[in-house]
Amino acid sequence: MNGFRFELLSGGAFGPRLGRVHTAHGAFDTPAFLPVGTYGAVKTVTPEEVRACGAQAILANTYHLHLRPGEGLVRSLGGLHRFMHWDGPILTDSGGFQVFSLSELRTVTPEGVRFRSHLDGSPRVLTPESAVAIQEALGSDIMMVLDECLPYPATRGQALASLELTQSWAARCKAAWRGGNALFGIVQGGVYADLRLRAVEGLLEIGFPGYALGGFSVGEPPALMYDLVGATAPALPADRPRYLMGVGTPADLIEAIDRGVDFFDCVLPTRNARNGSLFTAAGTLNIRNAAHAADPGPIEPGCPCAACRGYSRAYLRHLALCRETLGLRLNTIHNLSYYQRLMAAGRTAIAAGRWEAFRDESRAAQAAGKA
Amino acid sequence: MNGFRFELLSGGAFGPRLGRVHTAHGAFDTPAFLPVGTYGAVKTVTPEEVRACGAQAILANTYHLHLRPGEGLVRSLGGLHRFMHWDGPILTDSGGFQVFSLSELRTVTPEGVRFRSHLDGSPRVLTPESAVAIQEALGSDIMMVLDECLPYPATRGQALASLELTQSWAARCKAAWRGGNALFGIVQGGVYADLRLRAVEGLLEIGFPGYALGGFSVGEPPALMYDLVGATAPALPADRPRYLMGVGTPADLIEAIDRGVDFFDCVLPTRNARNGSLFTAAGTLNIRNAAHAADPGPIEPGCPCAACRGYSRAYLRHLALCRETLGLRLNTIHNLSYYQRLMAAGRTAIAAGRWEAFRDESRAAQAAGKA
Repeated sequence: MNGFRFELLSGGAFGPRLGRVHTAHGAFDTPAFLPVGTYGAVKTVTPEEVRACGAQAILANTYHLHLRPGEGLVRSLGGLHRFMHWDGPILTDSGGFQVFSLSELRTVTPEGVRFRSHLDGSPRVLTPESAVAIQEALGSDIMMVLDECLPYPATRGQALASLELTQSWAARCKAAWRGGNALFGIVQGGVYADLRLRAVEGLLEIGFPGYALGGFSVGEPPALMYDLVGATAPALPADRPRYLMGVGTPADLIEAIDRGVDFFDCVLPTRNARNGSLFTAAGTLNIRNAAHAADPGPIEPGCPCAACRGYSRAYLRHLALCRETLGLRLNTIHNLSYYQRLMAAGRTAIAAGRWEAFRDESRAAQAAGKA
Repeated sequence: MNGFRFELLSGGAFGPRLGRVHTAHGAFDTPAFLPVGTYGAVKTVTPEEVRACGAQAILANTYHLHLRPGEGLVRSLGGLHRFMHWDGPILTDSGGFQVFSLSELRTVTPEGVRFRSHLDGSPRVLTPESAVAIQEALGSDIMMVLDECLPYPATRGQALASLELTQSWAARCKAAWRGGNALFGIVQGGVYADLRLRAVEGLLEIGFPGYALGGFSVGEPPALMYDLVGATAPALPADRPRYLMGVGTPADLIEAIDRGVDFFDCVLPTRNARNGSLFTAAGTLNIRNAAHAADPGPIEPGCPCAACRGYSRAYLRHLALCRETLGLRLNTIHNLSYYQRLMAAGRTAIAAGRWEAFRDESRAAQAAGKA
């Protein structure tokens, strides 16, 4: 693999870990949160701003880039890094999640999944082999295997059948993989801990440079997710990075780090920002609220982000009410900064041997309706 | 006046002039183009980006800020500069233009104009005195008198009647003016050169630190505007800055500078950018066009703007098709840079005594269907 390496700096199979994921496009420190750049752009912000928020790596969506502008075009223009002007690590998903959540008339067969584009209804096929080929064409640093995404709730029987399909797809992805970029396996199994452990076993037989936990944040109670993550993560090899896909709230991140997860991606901070919902250490606020109409203070006192340094809540509320896209962007910068500061504080706490205190403070803030 | 001063560096009553407008918030070099920040934000970009494009001063709309968030709130938060995080010169219009173009059920009386807010239908009144008071509350560096904006075409009789009203309003604005910020008179008179000269005469009797030419770009042929500007501008005092309101295309700017105008504002570069229409020295292009789908080059080769330095036409087209607001912003940065580069090149040409050559090259490019 092209420069891919996981350096575990502290921790092991259980509990919080400190690490560094090295790629051909630089490294990112774990625990890490990867902002989502759906169409090859983190919505409303430039790569420079994403980096200034503290992010070292991002995620892009294979499904969306496959449909528009197409991986062939991206490759012909020098790959996704050059196309989107981001020179740090990029992780791409397999496209499977969007096939299952966005497209219509999908048919799953052992071969792969047939679906219709949500854009124009055109018929498409995604197979384990094409999912890998698309991601290789995009040139991401970390690719994901194609998996079937179970709805929640799913019966044990459904979960088991799906698991077998997902395992066979994982093996085919590994076989199709040309070995340049890193390829991660994905642990599925629904809400059944024993099935998830069986999934881990199957993936370990195939062998991947990293492992993801998939199928969470699909409607299950957070406590159930925490239990399943806690039961599954320690079964993964300690020397491989662990990625919890599509998760989550600040509380989710703390609990998952506590259970041995290394990194995350989620649209929550960026999507919420565009709805005016902003994270602060004193709780979330909605900038559209009349309470902020004449507030000369920043979103969050002490926050070093560009939004908090330059603009008042009153101004940001004004932009929101006037539908000025500058407001979406400043809100996004704040929320991304908040997530990155949370990850940085977590890393510092682990390094200093005071993770438990940090975790408990976070939980207490949660219980008080904050953060 | 609080630091306001016009420094005429070269030129006189006729022809192109080089100057510098000093204000309490710094100076701007003329000929100048002021980007429009309707709601106290140049759409899609930060003040830092506006400045990086080369702009030294901006315009904000009194009508819009009066309705949202209200000048009282802006004043209580330290004035418009602080509110919007722009520390350079700000010019505000009087609000009259929007009253006449956006609001419904307006009634003009000698006292002022009654209208209904285009936002919620609430009844409002704008008088010469309130127009000045609102702008003083906003704290702009250059304020404009309230004027009646004639539609095009308008008869000579309409233009004459309107002119008399506008003159009486100008006198009342001057009387209401507290003298802190600069107040500019506005020359109206429709398409009738003699009426415009009469307007100049009336304004000079009142006396203002600067003068604007209003009522252009309302549908009249460009050649007619050029003639009227050429007939009117030289009648204004050479030692006072001259501002052509709401104009215009790159060609309009060149022709008006040639006829003695010092500065401009217009939504054209920013609005066109959001529609994907981009200015280049080789002509305008629409980034949505399929011709750019696989183009690895920048919008304009050699352009030093952040959009051209970091992104290909192919990527910008992709963003436009995906409706990513990042694209609106990068397009805006390019168009604003284009306008500022045009003004800078014009100033350099005037300073070097080669304005005529510069003007003629611009005209030739125009005639070739370019720029």
